Amino acid sequence: MKSFIKAALMGALFTSLATLPAQAAVDGETQFLLNTFLFIMMGALVMWMAAGFAMLESGLVRSKNVGAICLKNISLFSVACIMFMLCGYNLLYGIDEGGYLGTFAFWAADDSGVLAEGAVIEGGYAAASDFFFQVVFVATAASIVSGTIAERVKLFPFLIFTAILAAVIYPVQASWVWGQGWLTAMGFKDFAGSTLVHSTGGWAALVGAVLLGARRGKYGADGKPRPMPGSNLTLATLGTFILWLGWFGFNGGSQLAFGSAADGVAVSNIILNTNMAACGGVVAAMIVTRLVYGKVDLSMVLNGALAGLVSITASPDTPTLGIATLIGAVGGVLVVFTVPLLDKLKIDDVVGAIPVHLVCGIWGTLAVSITADVPFVTQLIGVTAIGAWVVVASLVAWLALKLTVGIRLSPEEEDLGTDITELGLEAYPEFGRGSQKLV
Amino acid sequence: MKSFIKAALMGALFTSLATLPAQAAVDGETQFLLNTFLFIMMGALVMWMAAGFAMLESGLVRSKNVGAICLKNISLFSVACIMFMLCGYNLLYGIDEGGYLGTFAFWAADDSGVLAEGAVIEGGYAAASDFFFQVVFVATAASIVSGTIAERVKLFPFLIFTAILAAVIYPVQASWVWGQGWLTAMGFKDFAGSTLVHSTGGWAALVGAVLLGARRGKYGADGKPRPMPGSNLTLATLGTFILWLGWFGFNGGSQLAFGSAADGVAVSNIILNTNMAACGGVVAAMIVTRLVYGKVDLSMVLNGALAGLVSITASPDTPTLGIATLIGAVGGVLVVFTVPLLDKLKIDDVVGAIPVHLVCGIWGTLAVSITADVPFVTQLIGVTAIGAWVVVASLVAWLALKLTVGIRLSPEEEDLGTDITELGLEAYPEFGRGSQKLV
Amino acid sequence: MKSFIKAALMGALFTSLATLPAQAAVDGETQFLLNTFLFIMMGALVMWMAAGFAMLESGLVRSKNVGAICLKNISLFSVACIMFMLCGYNLLYGIDEGGYLGTFAFWAADDSGVLAEGAVIEGGYAAASDFFFQVVFVATAASIVSGTIAERVKLFPFLIFTAILAAVIYPVQASWVWGQGWLTAMGFKDFAGSTLVHSTGGWAALVGAVLLGARRGKYGADGKPRPMPGSNLTLATLGTFILWLGWFGFNGGSQLAFGSAADGVAVSNIILNTNMAACGGVVAAMIVTRLVYGKVDLSMVLNGALAGLVSITASPDTPTLGIATLIGAVGGVLVVFTVPLLDKLKIDDVVGAIPVHLVCGIWGTLAVSITADVPFVTQLIGVTAIGAWVVVASLVAWLALKLTVGIRLSPEEEDLGTDITELGLEAYPEFGRGSQKLV
Repeated sequence: MKSFIKAALMGALFTSLATLPAQAAVDGETQFLLNTFLFIMMGALVMWMAAGFAMLESGLVRSKNVGAICLKNISLFSVACIMFMLCGYNLLYGIDEGGYLGTFAFWAADDSGVLAEGAVIEGGYAAASDFFFQVVFVATAASIVSGTIAERVKLFPFLIFTAILAAVIYPVQASWVWGQGWLTAMGFKDFAGSTLVHSTGGWAALVGAVLLGARRGKYGADGKPRPMPGSNLTLATLGTFILWLGWFGFNGGSQLAFGSAADGVAVSNIILNTNMAACGGVVAAMIVTRLVYGKVDLSMVLNGALAGLVSITASPDTPTLGIATLIGAVGGVLVVFTVPLLDKLKIDDVVGAIPVHLVCGIWGTLAVSITADVPFVTQLIGVTAIGAWVVVASLVAWLALKLTVGIRLSPEEEDLGTDITELGLEAYPEFGRGSQKLV
Repeated sequence: MKSFIKAALMGALFTSLATLPAQAAVDGETQFLLNTFLFIMMGALVMWMAAGFAMLESGLVRSKNVGAICLKNISLFSVACIMFMLCGYNLLYGIDEGGYLGTFAFWAADDSGVLAEGAVIEGGYAAASDFFFQVVFVATAASIVSGTIAERVKLFPFLIFTAILAAVIYPVQASWVWGQGWLTAMGFKDFAGSTLVHSTGGWAALVGAVLLGARRGKYGADGKPRPMPGSNLTLATLGTFILWLGWFGFNGGSQLAFGSAADGVAVSNIILNTNMAACGGVVAAMIVTRLVYGKVDLSMVLNGALAGLVSITASPDTPTLGIATLIGAVGGVLVVFTVPLLDKLKIDDVVGAIPVHLVCGIWGTLAVSITADVPFVTQLIGVTAIGAWVVVASLVAWLALKLTVGIRLSPEEEDLGTDITELGLEAYPEFGRGSQKLV
Repeated sequence: MKSFIKAALMGALFTSLATLPAQAAVDGETQFLLNTFLFIMMGALVMWMAAGFAMLESGLVRSKNVGAICLKNISLFSVACIMFMLCGYNLLYGIDEGGYLGTFAFWAADDSGVLAEGAVIEGGYAAASDFFFQVVFVATAASIVSGTIAERVKLFPFLIFTAILAAVIYPVQASWVWGQGWLTAMGFKDFAGSTLVHSTGGWAALVGAVLLGARRGKYGADGKPRPMPGSNLTLATLGTFILWLGWFGFNGGSQLAFGSAADGVAVSNIILNTNMAACGGVVAAMIVTRLVYGKVDLSMVLNGALAGLVSITASPDTPTLGIATLIGAVGGVLVVFTVPLLDKLKIDDVVGAIPVHLVCGIWGTLAVSITADVPFVTQLIGVTAIGAWVVVASLVAWLALKLTVGIRLSPEEEDLGTDITELGLEAYPEFGRGSQKLV
């Protein structure tokens, strides 16, 4: 039995697809089309994650802040896309191999080579399909920030930070790995962005949360956190399902190719491992909250699913299904224990994005060494270097905003809610105040 | 005119695609990739159905049970995936041709043959993409159960039943058909699972509902049902649209191949027929409720859409568009008349899953004989055999749970609502109790 | 710097993909499959837009009309699909080149040519995949109408109008362009339907709104509009995200082919331009409402996204990213200024569909001349001719309905709400009436 379990869990471990003989049967133009189709469909799924974040965060804030969080989510996506076009893309991909900094330039699709002569088609893809797939990743990183610092941050300073994140902070660190910069040269692996996307968003959120301070009334005179329950848990659940679906694109598309049987096998394994890690996160969070708190906590279970997804993202191509489930389950457990830890530090993270994206992003990146032939130290260096850059850069950006335009609403505005204050409306004007005492 | 209508309705009937000459132009590796891509994209759509069930059920239960139904939906999906990996898959597909029972074994992706040598690629697909597509079907069957027995079943016993369903009950009967077992040998046809998935879920739900009994207060002293209106019909509508979209994957992917023009034609016909059957179900339910009740019933129309979808699922590849629309419309009519029938029997089905999935699942399976060359008796044997297995197995499982851990909440817990009782929260803490008297 | 911006914005302008040498590497059957797969996946995304309209409109009406708007959205989709099968498709595509009217006939999938012999496969696609892609466009046009005239129109007259729209009004004008009729012969360009779908829906909605009159109490004795805020802005936001995602299919699939590298490049550019135009619309609407009204208006920003999407739809294949963003931004500005204009004319458009779909549909169609080699006058003729047809035909249809069955609810029914009146239910029975005074 033991060897049976071992075989099931460890079977395909350390089998590197890259070392297998390439198939040459698919002609160059068909490869080009399949690669491009992968980017388009998977990119569309990742764009859909923006809706997932919007629903998750809308469901987890109080109703007086729901309209503002919707606005933030749709506008941050738009700002991120525009800034990545104006600056981010070339900063990410216009870097020398092994280098530290890309170039500053607008990006414009250029497939004239492809269209003029067949020779460059081989193994390629449409330039715009690649940009489309990459730009939605930037928006994901920005979405993470909005949840943590909700209910008290001012709208326009938040959007300015988003612009800086998309134009500079994200691309610079991502260039070190996906732009073939110094971290890739060193052997660091982050397949789809546990660190590059998720912990980057998490660090930026953490710095913002510390500088902003907690919401009014969140921590009592005794220092104990007061519950501020989310206003709509169905929407939070919907958001989680949307993110789960979108993650198939996030991880699956990160194979960046679908032109050979080896690619087809890799993308399939990746998507299935992604699914199993989310399952592991759900079950782990459910069991642990039941054991620790006596009752199952729905919002913790939702975050458990996301924790599993973040955890597998650094290396969804190498684990077996069993190991992938376990990696996700560890993520689910981490979230359950990190949420109260943040409360002890009085870091007020409205939706739990720091435990999910930062803590599990780090865990997932370090866990790469379990299933892939990458030294643990290399992974640790990558996590640390990127963390240091994002913390410093975010600190500069948030501080500059704080000292100039200000980043926090006045106490009166915060009590009134960001919807009335910043938008002059209510998200649910006809639904009365319910059975719980509201802050 | 008559012959014109006849031609339109009957045109392509009984044209079996399988008898047409195969095209050999697509090379083996491209076929492998197209097949794999079909599984991935259609599997992702089927996974999305889990969100559809979550929203549909959330919208149709009362607000005091919304959080628990969200939790059940995300956790049943996770449990089903894990159990199918641990046991279900090999029980389903590890069966001898014409056999009765598969094998017990963990499943692990193994594409080493594909990756080592080109010869095995021809007409194949990545193992993980196939598993991915199959595992989401199991979750669908489990989702059906949760809606019927909502608002009174205990969380963990429900999840244990889900585990048994995914590990044993579902795979055993599915192996008889999709595993090439004895029912396939006999000529039984269930293309995408009207019986294998939908009536299986429906039977398991029915047994659960009978053993659990009705919700407190559902049937008055006079035996008449009291309305317990769903708390959020927009979410129920959203859930129906999600399921409609997901069904394109459910039925379209069940062609299991996209490597030849014949497959491309088949998948297209299937998806279009699926769409038209849903349209037929909507229009039929709308007209019938208007005629019978004087007003159009939204929740009945939503169930009409699902009824159409379930009805076409057993044979979406053979009808013309017109016949597909009619098959769906009959499903829509069946739902309208079965819902009150259940109430007469005092079987309390919260969301109407038994009329939709069980009754229309049977109808759709029998209707196969109208458009495909399959004897009615064969279909009847299949429906009966699978029904008998699922009823007996579910009865054993539900009874075992009832006699050990218990399956029903206490009356006080039920009155308080499953959200407070099992999760210690409210799904909509700020939305007050509205204009209707609540039980 | 100036030339740098110019290069970025104008780079690929006026590069016609059609003039480039065709690649011949992809074999005919693979082309057939890729074309078919494009239709299926993009058609599924367009079907998903029906859910987007349902959520957008549900969120923007008052809660007493939410159930009825859900019902209208799911039933209009069904009616439109059935009517397009019975009549619309052949009216659209059964037209002579350069002609004025198609043929009246049922449509039935017929791929017997494809299946019998390989010769016809080259560059083709499955007939049903094409119908599937086209039918969901009809439903989109019908969805536009339901939002504008919500909260006061009777259900069945609305559905009869939908049937006429899908069977006759839409197909006749669409045949002039996509059926290769007289407008295409003249050189008119509407790539994916800024005019053919969106302004068609907009004109039909405008005529309906004028004939119906405003909602009771919408305009005070002083002629000033009274706010009637939407009941659920999260759902409106979700609907916008759904539409955004669906639009990738709407525009991307309108390339109608994915069988060569040139097609792959075109589809990629189209989808990316579509995304950037939406971003432009969001940012423009946000900035303009902030400047004009002092506060950012969420519902205006959501409509800004849709305005950007409508604006780019007539020619998503020719602009650079920068120009696409600007075309969308102009759409966003137009919406902000057209909404109050309609109120001055006392045309009561509940969800803002006329500014979004009609005004931006016209703008987008005229803007084609900026980036494609099409004379402005030709575009103007197309917009005018189609507008005239739709207005006249809609007027006849709406008037006939008004004079026979009547199209407007009684004042008492309207005050009570369409949910109670027409469906006998409440969409949110447990959520009390909130803080705002309701009409």
